[in-house]
Amino acid sequence: MSEVVPITLLPPRGFELLDQTRLPGEERTFKVATVEAACEAIASLRVRGAPLLGVAAAATMAVAAETTDASNASLEAAAALIGSVRPTAVDLGVRAAQALAVARSLAAVPDQRRTILWAFAARLLDERRAEDLAMGRLGASLFESGTNVLTHCNTGALATGGIGTALGVIRTAWAQGLVQHCYATETRPLLQGARLTMWELARLGLPATLLPDTAAASLIASGRVQAVITGADRIAANGDTANKIGTYGLAVLAARHRVPFYIAAPTSTFDATCPGAAAVPIEFRDEREVGGFGAERWSPEGSPAYNPAFDVTPAELISAFVTERTIIRPPYAESMGELLTAAH
Amino acid sequence: MSEVVPITLLPPRGFELLDQTRLPGEERTFKVATVEAACEAIASLRVRGAPLLGVAAAATMAVAAETTDASNASLEAAAALIGSVRPTAVDLGVRAAQALAVARSLAAVPDQRRTILWAFAARLLDERRAEDLAMGRLGASLFESGTNVLTHCNTGALATGGIGTALGVIRTAWAQGLVQHCYATETRPLLQGARLTMWELARLGLPATLLPDTAAASLIASGRVQAVITGADRIAANGDTANKIGTYGLAVLAARHRVPFYIAAPTSTFDATCPGAAAVPIEFRDEREVGGFGAERWSPEGSPAYNPAFDVTPAELISAFVTERTIIRPPYAESMGELLTAAH
Repeated sequence: MSEVVPITLLPPRGFELLDQTRLPGEERTFKVATVEAACEAIASLRVRGAPLLGVAAAATMAVAAETTDASNASLEAAAALIGSVRPTAVDLGVRAAQALAVARSLAAVPDQRRTILWAFAARLLDERRAEDLAMGRLGASLFESGTNVLTHCNTGALATGGIGTALGVIRTAWAQGLVQHCYATETRPLLQGARLTMWELARLGLPATLLPDTAAASLIASGRVQAVITGADRIAANGDTANKIGTYGLAVLAARHRVPFYIAAPTSTFDATCPGAAAVPIEFRDEREVGGFGAERWSPEGSPAYNPAFDVTPAELISAFVTERTIIRPPYAESMGELLTAAH
Repeated sequence: MSEVVPITLLPPRGFELLDQTRLPGEERTFKVATVEAACEAIASLRVRGAPLLGVAAAATMAVAAETTDASNASLEAAAALIGSVRPTAVDLGVRAAQALAVARSLAAVPDQRRTILWAFAARLLDERRAEDLAMGRLGASLFESGTNVLTHCNTGALATGGIGTALGVIRTAWAQGLVQHCYATETRPLLQGARLTMWELARLGLPATLLPDTAAASLIASGRVQAVITGADRIAANGDTANKIGTYGLAVLAARHRVPFYIAAPTSTFDATCPGAAAVPIEFRDEREVGGFGAERWSPEGSPAYNPAFDVTPAELISAFVTERTIIRPPYAESMGELLTAAH
């Protein structure tokens, strides 16, 4: 079984993406050679997942350098644009800004800047692979033998370019004989669980069961799962965690039924500048995502909809964070401070 | 604006149903003239909603009498069949059994039995209309002026044949200027909220917003709703309540955020023979309902799915029950006993 490859860098011309909106029906890749095309792919979720968005942001900075004079002004404009496409995932803006800083500090000549930006994107992708493997090994130690685990959205290879964050932990623990079954929420409205996670798990041969988001509460109450693990889009300095809409509800239910609730995310997802839940910007998406899917429309024409892409889970509901470096446990006021000091 | 008519009795030939699986795209009615056709309509959710299922069960008993010798054996067989189509809603089996008892005790001649069974079905439908109005008036008193309310699944005219249970309360409170806005969960997998509740609310002109089930947690946490109200499929003697899958999760979130959580259901939904949550039979439905909707399939072919149609909300999470007779408040050990003694 070959690994899933959601992004391929093709310097100097651009990069190739696996179109995640077409999965699982169609495995179609497409080339991105302009900043505009990259922003469209990010906005429409053809590429998604906080860590992979960081790689895509860096690759888009390289494309910006290739398609302009690569001046400070051109690269600054590109970084600002990339950071604004989706506000909640910390990786987009941070990685674009890092790429800008690297280019600015290391080279003045346009062609050197281009080379450096491609190298930076490639390094991020390599880091993702290495960090995901480290996170998987650390996170697997959280599970006892015979664990059935519940996850939300997609946090696999499609979300990072490596083996994934939460799904990387699950597959590592499964390979070690600790996890025996994975339950995946379908994750409305865009169904990343049903479409992407179930597809990845089927490719791996990892025994998996899909459920409607409405059934997660009774699944947890029934005692069928011994752990819940998800990824994160932004983790505030106090441990409050923004992730795919629906995560907060799962965390509340896990706490009620004394099932441990874990977050797996690389250190780069921790945002030391964000003090807590109230400071996390939440992206609201098109109302039409809610009343249907694909060609099917099921709500009356013109139904108004409430469609936040993320919610925030307070730190008190999170049993532990798994990063590529360490497992962070409460009290977070202490443990989170050490991580952020070491990282930034 | 005309009222929604989900069932029309057409004695002696059968009855007509509005096909709820076609809404909101198509308002199509169809005739039912055999017990088999009625069971298919119930199993496929062309007719649904616990109270309306009770009416349909009684009408199906009349059809059974019309299409057989109307003997005890024929009617017993029909009642057993009807009661077995969907196990969780108490109304199906109870109303079929009541129809059987009425026919058996009041008439021996086949034609008289047929007449009596049609009259019983018509009386149940009249009762639904009267009880829904009474429930609406009582329930409206629970809301303060300016309330934004959240509901789940469909509990309107389409679920009862009257003005509805929870949705009947909401529309009565809206007509009185108390409720100002209704949030409706889409209610996966069969989308009764998106398809049926949003359609009914649009017809009424009641301001409404649809949300993915995943967004209910953040909606409640945001303070946007001041009350949650749903219907019920079976209420145990201790107050534990079986209702559409996803209800339990909403109740847990409402409790966490100190938002009152109400159940609106007629007295007939209370099952004195069922002691509590563990004794409620839960219907598991076809796995294929989960991986898609209509013509659209979004999970990989053959994905296993966990698809319970109902969950059980423990009584401790329910702020009050609204019935056609009274509002029942905790401690339920006491108040529920009085209702059940009066009812049965």
